[in-house]
Amino acid sequence: MAQNMLIGQSGGPTAVINSSLAGAMQYAFSRDEIDTVYGMINGITGLLNDNIINLNDVFKARPSKINRLKLTPAMYLGSCRYKLSTDGDELERIVSQLEKYDIKYLIYIGGNDSMDTVQKLYEYTKKQSIDIKIAGIPKTVDNDLCGIDHSPGFGSAAKYVATAVRNVSYDTSIYSVKSVHIIEAMGRNAGWLTAASALARDKYEIAPHLIYLPEIPFSVDRFIEDLQEKLSQYNSVIAVVSEGIRDESGEYISTRGDEKDLFGHATLSGCSAYLRDIAAQRIGCKVRSLELSVLQRSGGHATSLTDVQEAFNLGIMAVKAVLQGETGVFSTLKRTSNLPYTVEYGTENVSVIANAERLVPREWINERGNDVTQAMLDYLRPLIEGVVQTPYRNGLPDYIDIAHLDINKQNYTDLA
Amino acid sequence: MAQNMLIGQSGGPTAVINSSLAGAMQYAFSRDEIDTVYGMINGITGLLNDNIINLNDVFKARPSKINRLKLTPAMYLGSCRYKLSTDGDELERIVSQLEKYDIKYLIYIGGNDSMDTVQKLYEYTKKQSIDIKIAGIPKTVDNDLCGIDHSPGFGSAAKYVATAVRNVSYDTSIYSVKSVHIIEAMGRNAGWLTAASALARDKYEIAPHLIYLPEIPFSVDRFIEDLQEKLSQYNSVIAVVSEGIRDESGEYISTRGDEKDLFGHATLSGCSAYLRDIAAQRIGCKVRSLELSVLQRSGGHATSLTDVQEAFNLGIMAVKAVLQGETGVFSTLKRTSNLPYTVEYGTENVSVIANAERLVPREWINERGNDVTQAMLDYLRPLIEGVVQTPYRNGLPDYIDIAHLDINKQNYTDLA
Repeated sequence: MAQNMLIGQSGGPTAVINSSLAGAMQYAFSRDEIDTVYGMINGITGLLNDNIINLNDVFKARPSKINRLKLTPAMYLGSCRYKLSTDGDELERIVSQLEKYDIKYLIYIGGNDSMDTVQKLYEYTKKQSIDIKIAGIPKTVDNDLCGIDHSPGFGSAAKYVATAVRNVSYDTSIYSVKSVHIIEAMGRNAGWLTAASALARDKYEIAPHLIYLPEIPFSVDRFIEDLQEKLSQYNSVIAVVSEGIRDESGEYISTRGDEKDLFGHATLSGCSAYLRDIAAQRIGCKVRSLELSVLQRSGGHATSLTDVQEAFNLGIMAVKAVLQGETGVFSTLKRTSNLPYTVEYGTENVSVIANAERLVPREWINERGNDVTQAMLDYLRPLIEGVVQTPYRNGLPDYIDIAHLDINKQNYTDLA
Repeated sequence: MAQNMLIGQSGGPTAVINSSLAGAMQYAFSRDEIDTVYGMINGITGLLNDNIINLNDVFKARPSKINRLKLTPAMYLGSCRYKLSTDGDELERIVSQLEKYDIKYLIYIGGNDSMDTVQKLYEYTKKQSIDIKIAGIPKTVDNDLCGIDHSPGFGSAAKYVATAVRNVSYDTSIYSVKSVHIIEAMGRNAGWLTAASALARDKYEIAPHLIYLPEIPFSVDRFIEDLQEKLSQYNSVIAVVSEGIRDESGEYISTRGDEKDLFGHATLSGCSAYLRDIAAQRIGCKVRSLELSVLQRSGGHATSLTDVQEAFNLGIMAVKAVLQGETGVFSTLKRTSNLPYTVEYGTENVSVIANAERLVPREWINERGNDVTQAMLDYLRPLIEGVVQTPYRNGLPDYIDIAHLDINKQNYTDLA
């Protein structure tokens, strides 16, 4: 009987999730224990809806295609945000689907919400004594995953944020008039990405002048005071704020109405525009706001080589783990040295990562709560190192084709 | 008596203005006719305020520093937005400053507003029979300059816009739910940059689905109709709009109050956020807006090699022109072939470019006014070609130090 592997992607995109898929596939293709690698389209919902593709057909004899996948942002297999029900029906449906495709190994790439799916599947298959090995591969731009030194996807987003701040700093320094730029980075509860803006500082480069993480209650009055103090020293001041900053009473500065997603998280964005209007009014100089929005997680043309490679290796590790009989785990890495930077790969129980969240420690934020400390910079620096040689065609990054993700697109049948 | 050259930069930044400065300096340093190259800090206001630096000291014996300058965005010499007075006092002050530094050659890098300064100085020095040769080097991300096939700075911004649209398209395609992204590109009156988003389309890539230029009156109702029609075909629809779109009566969709700059231009931005709220309300699916803002003109890490090299060559050409006795001109280029792409450099009278504006021709926009035609794509395609090998340090683009631009920064004296 065939022993097949099924792999899926879930949650929000990053620039290197496909690198994990590439690593997992490349390793699986090299092993005799695995006959066919299948992919679920749009995560676990693809399994439920029987939307499954044969990845051997697309990638197995094509190493250069795997290489292009490795450097393509977002998710080749599509995603979902779907909370698996714990009543039996849905889990039974999944098990019968796994039987249909003779799946012995299941790999799921995702963040803390997606690892909830891995956890539930692991517990159910264990209880039912179903012989299937399940592992997760972690990912998120937010860097808020527990049980891992840092999250794959974060390094590339961090590099994007720091590069953007440096570029804006050069852009704004040309005028001798006073100005403020408020740049908004992602981070609902954890300020890691916002903190990474500090990497833009260099010998001659002071920006960003102010950094506000969601871990510290945000005061608009103190923010205006901070801006005024920096404006007394510098012509152009750059402040970076997390989308998730909250006031003393815990209210998001940016909440738009009461929108919530399926996991109960508020739908955020827009605190920089809000603060821009207040700052312009109270300070009276030119104030501009800039939401980095999805650009910071989708920049496949300017990723961190370290990040791409680690994501790839974590893909290999997860497949290695299930082949060795592990289940209910995720692949992880430990930093063994900071300078030179080295890591060790391993696995950890998925319960450590599922639904948990790692915030920035208080001691990595300065006392006033408007900057980060040297310890944070030392932690961050290796993660953005290395430049990827993105393939270009017609002057633009030449990513792999993902036409199969829109069932309405004409080329869908190309892939079937 | 010494014969010196003075150079300045003016107007809004682009990613390749420093490449023109590098080209002009490198050529000037190689010529015996020129003793010292001086730079005015913050454009013509630097000359008026006697804020002048000696560029021989900084760059002459340092070719690798010129090379880094070539790949640094924004303006090494700083900028101004200053409309020169035509009464005699200011012009006399300028002439006495030019005498003080023994300036025989004056080079000014800027857009159509800045070329007004070149024009006035040329006319005044001609009338007064002052022996000085003056030339402009064109630049603008807007591509709205007359007398030149395309504007230096535009190609890199166009590459940024098309890359961003491609990245967002990958990011948004992972979910199977209906969504709309409204991306806002720069372009007050001319839609060239917005049009460049069409370059993101490829064999398998349909985004952007809709493109709206300021040359065509914008109707919110028609916009919603267009979105609905595209949503019936595709899950995720991307529309790109110019910041300067106006309704049938000529009112900007995005005007914030009555703010105007010194040249009388309205201060714009925000039409995408405005349209997002309307579209979300009328269509009911997820709608996100994204202003590319200053990121599209400051991305020194991802420029077009064609653009960088042309900006450099136009710098050389302007110096060549003044050394050959031309004055009141700007350096320009003509496209001599599209495939293979070739250009010819030359000069043109500055009156052609000063204060004039070149809009997108009607026939390069489709009939409905929501897309561009093949002729536009053919025109645009060569301009984003080629990838620059950006130097990186500590994981970030290693630009040249510009600490001298903020007189409050500690390192200012390093340069003096």
